[in-house]
Amino acid sequence: MPQPILFYFEFASPYGYLASIQIDDIASRYGREAMWKPIMLGAALKRTGSQPLAHVPIKKDYFLHDIQRCARLLDVPLRLPPVMPMNSLAASRAFWWLQDRNPCLAKRLARALYRAHWGEGRDLSAPEQVAEVAATLGIDSEELIAAVQDPAVKARLREETEASLELGVFGSPFVIVDGEPFWGADRLEQMERWLATGGW
Amino acid sequence: MPQPILFYFEFASPYGYLASIQIDDIASRYGREAMWKPIMLGAALKRTGSQPLAHVPIKKDYFLHDIQRCARLLDVPLRLPPVMPMNSLAASRAFWWLQDRNPCLAKRLARALYRAHWGEGRDLSAPEQVAEVAATLGIDSEELIAAVQDPAVKARLREETEASLELGVFGSPFVIVDGEPFWGADRLEQMERWLATGGW
Repeated sequence: MPQPILFYFEFASPYGYLASIQIDDIASRYGREAMWKPIMLGAALKRTGSQPLAHVPIKKDYFLHDIQRCARLLDVPLRLPPVMPMNSLAASRAFWWLQDRNPCLAKRLARALYRAHWGEGRDLSAPEQVAEVAATLGIDSEELIAAVQDPAVKARLREETEASLELGVFGSPFVIVDGEPFWGADRLEQMERWLATGGW
Repeated sequence: MPQPILFYFEFASPYGYLASIQIDDIASRYGREAMWKPIMLGAALKRTGSQPLAHVPIKKDYFLHDIQRCARLLDVPLRLPPVMPMNSLAASRAFWWLQDRNPCLAKRLARALYRAHWGEGRDLSAPEQVAEVAATLGIDSEELIAAVQDPAVKARLREETEASLELGVFGSPFVIVDGEPFWGADRLEQMERWLATGGW
């Protein structure tokens, strides 16, 4: 069986959102599965001495323009959230908590969270806000709010983030195909070509 | 007459090199001219608090891998220069000196310098190294070496760099089409679509 495609992303990253809309379709065209892996990008930004795009003078203005232009081109809904970057701890922990119980539901939750945050511009910094989105998928809010404070769930996210750093992940989205790294929503085309050809 | 496409780049930037190979062809498909504008990117990096890619931990390794992978895909020669980023003052000043006398020759010089630096891996930090490449186009070496120390030529490059910052240029390549900004060699496709459609 072919290896899954590793899809690393940060919920607070709009380019991660744009990639999330496309990644499963691309993977399935080549008989692959995309394994979704939300991480806390702050840890990587610290290592590379970078700032979140929304905090970088000058670049910030371009970035806000660019994500809206890209979304229009892809015909994907995009509405700027009130806080950029939001604190994605609760969203990411909720994902990893579910991932170990029901991976399909975890992926559906990730889609719903991305859609709420970047498609509808809703803040998801608080566990209650994440729970509200999760509830639309039938996920129990009390269980979720308890889970995101569970030390084991916190550790799971920390370990996944650490493991991503070991693999050289420094941005969102970051896709690894059979060991080959692709950074950025604008590398999906090359990534697909890699899948189709096995490299060049 | 349609406005020219403004093509901002830094000679020390490999993504600028990759774009330089494609920009004139794209422009001419839409009856446009690409106006080449080398700048000193260091000034922009200072404003955005960024480092040259070759100095950024972790990201640097990806970047070296990525530019070689992109070059293979585009079938463009690429050989890593001994110093990254090189000091591009002499190259940039030589361009602006020529630009005011013979714009066609200036563009040919820019191509030759990019080819020598990124296609053949030659360092061009010293005026003599720039002059050596320029000589292959029949440009007098002594005149060039004197020109890159000329206060008027130095001021010309400074002014062009300042003007680019005013327009929001913060990276290389950076293309402006009828006021619409596109950053990165990986935005050329969107840039071409903008030319074809007038926006979306």
